[in-house]
Amino acid sequence: MDRDALSSFGRRDWQTESDLEPVRFAMVGLGWWTREEAIPVTEDSDWCETTVVVSGDRDKAEDVADAVESAEVALTYDEFHDGAATDEYDAVYVATPNAEHLAFVESAAEFGKAVLCEKPMEATPARARRMVESCEDADVPLMVAYRMHTEPAVRRARELVGEGAIGDPVLVHGSMSQNLLEMNPNPDQWRLDPDLSGPGTSVMDLGIYPLNTARFVLDADPVAVSAFARSDGEAFSDVPDEAATFQVRFDDGTLAACSASQHAAQSSHLKVVGTEGVVSVEPAFFDRRDRAFALEVDGTRADVEYEQVDQMREEFDYFAHQLRTDGEILPDGRHGLVDLETIAAIYESAETGSTVSLSGI
Amino acid sequence: MDRDALSSFGRRDWQTESDLEPVRFAMVGLGWWTREEAIPVTEDSDWCETTVVVSGDRDKAEDVADAVESAEVALTYDEFHDGAATDEYDAVYVATPNAEHLAFVESAAEFGKAVLCEKPMEATPARARRMVESCEDADVPLMVAYRMHTEPAVRRARELVGEGAIGDPVLVHGSMSQNLLEMNPNPDQWRLDPDLSGPGTSVMDLGIYPLNTARFVLDADPVAVSAFARSDGEAFSDVPDEAATFQVRFDDGTLAACSASQHAAQSSHLKVVGTEGVVSVEPAFFDRRDRAFALEVDGTRADVEYEQVDQMREEFDYFAHQLRTDGEILPDGRHGLVDLETIAAIYESAETGSTVSLSGI
Repeated sequence: MDRDALSSFGRRDWQTESDLEPVRFAMVGLGWWTREEAIPVTEDSDWCETTVVVSGDRDKAEDVADAVESAEVALTYDEFHDGAATDEYDAVYVATPNAEHLAFVESAAEFGKAVLCEKPMEATPARARRMVESCEDADVPLMVAYRMHTEPAVRRARELVGEGAIGDPVLVHGSMSQNLLEMNPNPDQWRLDPDLSGPGTSVMDLGIYPLNTARFVLDADPVAVSAFARSDGEAFSDVPDEAATFQVRFDDGTLAACSASQHAAQSSHLKVVGTEGVVSVEPAFFDRRDRAFALEVDGTRADVEYEQVDQMREEFDYFAHQLRTDGEILPDGRHGLVDLETIAAIYESAETGSTVSLSGI
Repeated sequence: MDRDALSSFGRRDWQTESDLEPVRFAMVGLGWWTREEAIPVTEDSDWCETTVVVSGDRDKAEDVADAVESAEVALTYDEFHDGAATDEYDAVYVATPNAEHLAFVESAAEFGKAVLCEKPMEATPARARRMVESCEDADVPLMVAYRMHTEPAVRRARELVGEGAIGDPVLVHGSMSQNLLEMNPNPDQWRLDPDLSGPGTSVMDLGIYPLNTARFVLDADPVAVSAFARSDGEAFSDVPDEAATFQVRFDDGTLAACSASQHAAQSSHLKVVGTEGVVSVEPAFFDRRDRAFALEVDGTRADVEYEQVDQMREEFDYFAHQLRTDGEILPDGRHGLVDLETIAAIYESAETGSTVSLSGI
């Protein structure tokens, strides 16, 4: 790591313009993530603006609109689907429960609006595919909100792996865990309800981080998975994966050993071991924890502590920048669909005890 | 971590005596590990002494005997089996290729000698079981040389997990990798020969570290495994696992995501995530790398850098101490046999693509 590598560690390698007309967002789903993580970055950015807020609860929508200076319109879900105020926004950010994403994206596509949809993009591969097709048919951009793709430590890891800095990748280790019920004690929350979350909670909501980040860093896709899962706790009785491990065989031959739990201490890591070196990000996936980056080659290790970015700010700015500059917008819906197919296979393997092949993707 | 916990981090919690009559060892198999790692610690210790050296090559045995002051007898393998010089040693250290361990342990048992046998204890579970039975029948102690059991960082991790310091264990992550052919460029070495190594190389020789250390730290045993493996390189054409991942379901419900490779940069870690905290050792398994220990509870992390021990010295001194004080000698052959059964199941799963149950152990 020379001086230039260090001083440009946090650079926005995707940025070509700085003077852009702001993208006006309709924020759909006003849970704490949207209110505390997404809306504030649009308020802070010169390129993004929250002009419309959309909730199933009219009072909640109006409260949020009152609290956010730029938000001039509060809509219910029905009003949104009916096409209200489409002149007031350019793009839609969807952060409802997983199984409700599709309907909002279909409406946004119908209105010709660009979409930034939270991950996992939907509850099942079939619904995710419908989402992709509706956006392709309407020719609107669909980006899945994988905030690790614009995280500098992850982008530098991807560059280094791509350049062969660690030789050929051999093994990946990734994990993400948190205590969901300490963050939200309600046992009836949507993340524990298969009708809203999808086939489970820990792999869907957390395992997707090591899975997707490994795909991004390796620039490779899964060809087979196998998994173990268990649920013992009362609150987890409707989902199979209070905790889970899963292994992934990638199309470049790399093997990954991953895990996730919604009922464990907060912890996360990503480590790629190549034939000649190791690159790691730990802690890796929590946006409010400083990420640390290390590169080790031939036994010499460089630890990089860098100026942390607001991951949501990077993600929203990237989306707005690409939209305004007509740049390619990644990760797109086809990319997100691969995760949904892989996650469905992980749940299938945990249930059947057999490896599930993904060569059909 | 208070002052007492730190100042006694490296303590030998198993030690009750200090003035002991030295145990005289016959060192069987004079590869670099025995010559550079094992014999020097017996020379350095007041409790151990190398008096007999045994090799398939008479010249090599004599060269080593000449170079080691306390070694008065050089034997060939045949002479050892014939019972030569049994008055000159009290115990036998076996560090030949895996598939040759059994014959030496059987002879040692016949001569009434205590045995310290390198891990994996043999090439197959059937042969490992014969080893256990021959020692039990002869009533001689059999210890399997898992040096992590006397590594202070691992013992402190086990204590903390046992005390509930991280709540209930949920997930374990473990890995070990190295570039075997850079350490020994000979493609015909025994670790790549299934007749001598057993069903493979990376899981047998390296994966056994995260597997066994997880068992020791959790005080739990595997009930099911599944695995992926691959071999692409020419030198690895006779073994299935140039690289491998494997997951383990333990009898306490903990799930482990592990990996190993003999063709990747040197790297190792062990991390146990509980409901309330995380304990990690990284680097973990290489004796010439400083091990670092960390405990994180409720988001507060303590990093412990401690005075490193010579792991072989700890292991040999423990074995000698327990032998001289008539203490229990662990890990014993029954413990090692569980790893052999588990590793056989890992290779079976990698081949069949199905989870393999170990409930029969």
